Order: sequence, then structure tokens, then C-alpha cells
Amino acid sequence: MYSIEKFYSAVEAGKHICVGLDADIEKIPSHLTKSDDPIFLFNKEIIDATRSNVAAYKLNFAFYEANGIEGLTSLKKTIDYIGDKIFIIGDAKRGDIGSTSAMYAKSVFDYFKCDAVTLHPYMGYDSVQPFLEYNDKLNFILALTSNKSASDFESLTLSSNEKLYQKVIEKVHQWNKQFGNCGIVFGATQLTQLQENINLVKGLPMLLPGVGAQGGSLEDVVTLFNKHRFSSYLINASRSIIYSSDGVQFAESAADELDRLNKAIAKISE
Amino acid sequence: MYSIEKFYSAVEAGKHICVGLDADIEKIPSHLTKSDDPIFLFNKEIIDATRSNVAAYKLNFAFYEANGIEGLTSLKKTIDYIGDKIFIIGDAKRGDIGSTSAMYAKSVFDYFKCDAVTLHPYMGYDSVQPFLEYNDKLNFILALTSNKSASDFESLTLSSNEKLYQKVIEKVHQWNKQFGNCGIVFGATQLTQLQENINLVKGLPMLLPGVGAQGGSLEDVVTLFNKHRFSSYLINASRSIIYSSDGVQFAESAADELDRLNKAIAKISE
Repeated sequence: MYSIEKFYSAVEAGKHICVGLDADIEKIPSHLTKSDDPIFLFNKEIIDATRSNVAAYKLNFAFYEANGIEGLTSLKKTIDYIGDKIFIIGDAKRGDIGSTSAMYAKSVFDYFKCDAVTLHPYMGYDSVQPFLEYNDKLNFILALTSNKSASDFESLTLSSNEKLYQKVIEKVHQWNKQFGNCGIVFGATQLTQLQENINLVKGLPMLLPGVGAQGGSLEDVVTLFNKHRFSSYLINASRSIIYSSDGVQFAESAADELDRLNKAIAKISE
Repeated sequence: MYSIEKFYSAVEAGKHICVGLDADIEKIPSHLTKSDDPIFLFNKEIIDATRSNVAAYKLNFAFYEANGIEGLTSLKKTIDYIGDKIFIIGDAKRGDIGSTSAMYAKSVFDYFKCDAVTLHPYMGYDSVQPFLEYNDKLNFILALTSNKSASDFESLTLSSNEKLYQKVIEKVHQWNKQFGNCGIVFGATQLTQLQENINLVKGLPMLLPGVGAQGGSLEDVVTLFNKHRFSSYLINASRSIIYSSDGVQFAESAADELDRLNKAIAKISE
């Protein structure tokens, strides 16, 4: 199955929760820390418990890079363990001049075998283009992020009277015409802006981080999307799922939390 | 010596050339490719030949990540080989929400032991702050980059009549008040904008990529800076130095090219 097909097959089946595997050695249950590769073991148990009900997994590269070669080995093992049936997002927030972006794309897509990546728009089209060339992969470009300082630049008003993030979304629509493999990242904490821009964002696959620990409301987002008959979205939850318990039953607890979120979506969608 | 001191000690000694170690297995001399770690061997020879005359080395993480764990092992070995006397820039173009940026900072500064990093400004202050907390490191934030598509967003005019990149530079000045460890990236290909903004950029350490293969003029940049008595800058050259020859004498040839650039700077500064 092509990468993009995995995305559509999940969302069309009504699965919208992306589990963020942001495993942190400081936070995983203590009984795991004696093993050879605690991070992989933690991820493996979470994957086993959630595999049948997730829409996607998101691997935040930073959490693995923080542990250097060892961490990146856990990342590679985790992605291999997920296998090729479930949509995998390499949340790497990359972006550089073309010849360098080509190398980052090689890393995320060819080496780590992710189905999708997250990208910074700041440097413009030629910084994104080498990723787009992988035409069955999905490229989520940062539009309006979930953090407070999104207001520093993303929400600035341009002389054309648009906000910068709106201009980014317009450009992403243009870039998307080439291979149809672009999407956007929009923070679930930015509900008012999501409501105001619903017609602008519709038609692009969307990745929404920020529910759970960051405070965004799953219910509000899903209600809005249903109202506008928009279904090509993934809502990411990381900490609220993977750290829902720090006991030996952590994976079961994670599966329960995922189940709760799935049911909340199903209830709104009835 | 603290990281920032390495930077100032180089530029105050009149050294301004940063050698970009963007080693690409497809481009390094063929006689190296039979060794166990051709990339490290290539870097090692370049370092041996240039160590006494460089201001800094810049490691473009993408080129190493493209080769996965093996590539990152070469990256680590290269940084260790450079040692702690020369300023090392981790050109990683990172930036994410605070808790994630803290992990990237851990990777670049604690694990890979870089003295500096390059960062995307798009997500704003809280995405940069965890890097700034390493208060003896230097953080080069992207302002106006060397690529053609810099015009897509970086050069957009805001309702305040400033360009976006000018607003970024203003913010970097504010952020810099905290620990004095911020700098900017400004493409050497953007000479007109550099001239027009010389008073805005002065006072911030500057990293200028884009001379050589990308077409920026070293002479024009140095003449401008000298005229304005500005010396806290590094001009990066990657391909034009490290690939100046593909023969067995490649490292000697790289040293000659570095020497030529150093002499060009010295001549302008007479």
C-alpha cells in the first residue's frame, strides 16, 4: 500500500487518532529501565496494545536524537516494528536549501521509512520541493502551531492583510497541485483560527497536535470538522496516551485512553 | 574555553572562513570509498589540512542523517576529532514546541557537543528558548537565507511595512538580551538586503552561507563589513573548499582554497 493510501484508508474508516511515540527515558515506567533498550520496549508494548485502533503513529525525532546513536537505533527499531500497514509520521520539522533538504528527505523517507514528514515553511518552496518529489509520501507543512509563541511570527499580519500562516496555507495549496502530497500542521489549541479558516484549510490533509497535555479540545475540533464534512485529519495525542499510567499496566492504560478518544469521536459523529 | 569564546577568539584574530563539512559519499574521492568509514576519513583529512587556518567547522546534519546510524556515527567521530579548540556549528535547522526543542538542544549540544546550532524562527520564542538556556552556546537563527525561495515568506512585507526577516532580526535582538548568545543566518547571496540592513544586523554574530557554489561574493560581503567596522561574522564555504579536487591530493587542495579565501579577506582588510 502506498504511504498516502494508508492515510486515506485510516481516516475513511473513521480513525483519526495519531499516537505520538515521544518516549522519554525520564518518564517511562521504571520497571522497563533495566532492559537493554527500554525506549524500544516501551514503544513495542504501546504499539502492541494500540495497533488495531490507531490511525497513525507519530515519531518525534527529537526524543530519539536526544539519546544520540542509541536513541536513533531505538527509533529505527520502532519504525520497523510498526511495519508497513500503519501510517507513520516522521515528526522531524526539517527544512533547508534544496540540496540539503534532499538529504533530509533521504533520511526520513528512505532510511527511516516514514510515510510522512513535518516541515518548516520559512525557507519557501525550494526547501520543501525535494520532499515533494517523493510523490507517494505525505508532507505536513507547519501552518499555525499549537504553542503560545505562534503569535511571534506565524500570526503576523502581512501588507496584503492576510496572516503569515494563511499565506503559508495558500502556498501549500499551490505546491499540492504538483503531486497531491501536501498537508498542513494546525494546532488543536488554535480553535478560533481553525473555525475562521475552515474554508481555507479544507482540501488539505491536516495534522493537529495539541490535544491532551497542551490543552486543545478534541471534541471542539471534531465537531467543527463534522459540521464541514471534512475528514482528512489526524489528531495527535502523545503524553496523554503514552503516559496515562506509569505502572506495569501502562500499555493497557494507553489502549484504554486511545479507546476513550476514539469513542468520543464516534459519539460526536453519530 | 567556552563555546562563545571560541567564536570571538577566531573572528578577533581575523579568521572568518567556516568550512562546511558536507561530506557526500557520491562526491568524495573514489580512493576513500573502500575504507570502513569513508566519510570520517574524508573529514579527517580535510580537518588535518585546514585546522590551523579555519575560523570554524560547520557540520550539516542532513548529510550524515541521510546515511542513518552509520552516518551519525561518522558525524560524532568527526566532531570528536575536531576537538574542543575550534568552534563547531551544528547546522541542524531545528525548531519545535518547547518540550521538543529541549530534546533537540540535548542532542546538538550535550550529545554531539556542538558549540552552536542553526534554528528556524517560524514557531517563535518558546521554540528557541530551550536552546538559549545553554547560555555559553551560540544560536544562529535563520533571518534571510541564501536560496531563491527565500522570497516566498522571508521577504514578505508585513502590515508594519517591515519585511518578515527584518521582524525576525528585531526579535533576535530582544532574545539576545537574556544571555547574549543569539546570532543570525544571512545568505551571502543577498548582498543588496545585507547592505540595506547593515545597521539592523550589526551587533549580532552572523553566519553567512552561500559563497562559492551558491554564487555569493566573499569580496563584496567583507568589503561591506569592513566599511561598517563589523567583525563578528563567519562566511561558510562547503563545496568550493571540500570538493576543490577529487584526486588523492583533495585535502591539500582544500587547504589551498581556504588559504586563497583567507588571503582575499586579508587583502580587503589591509
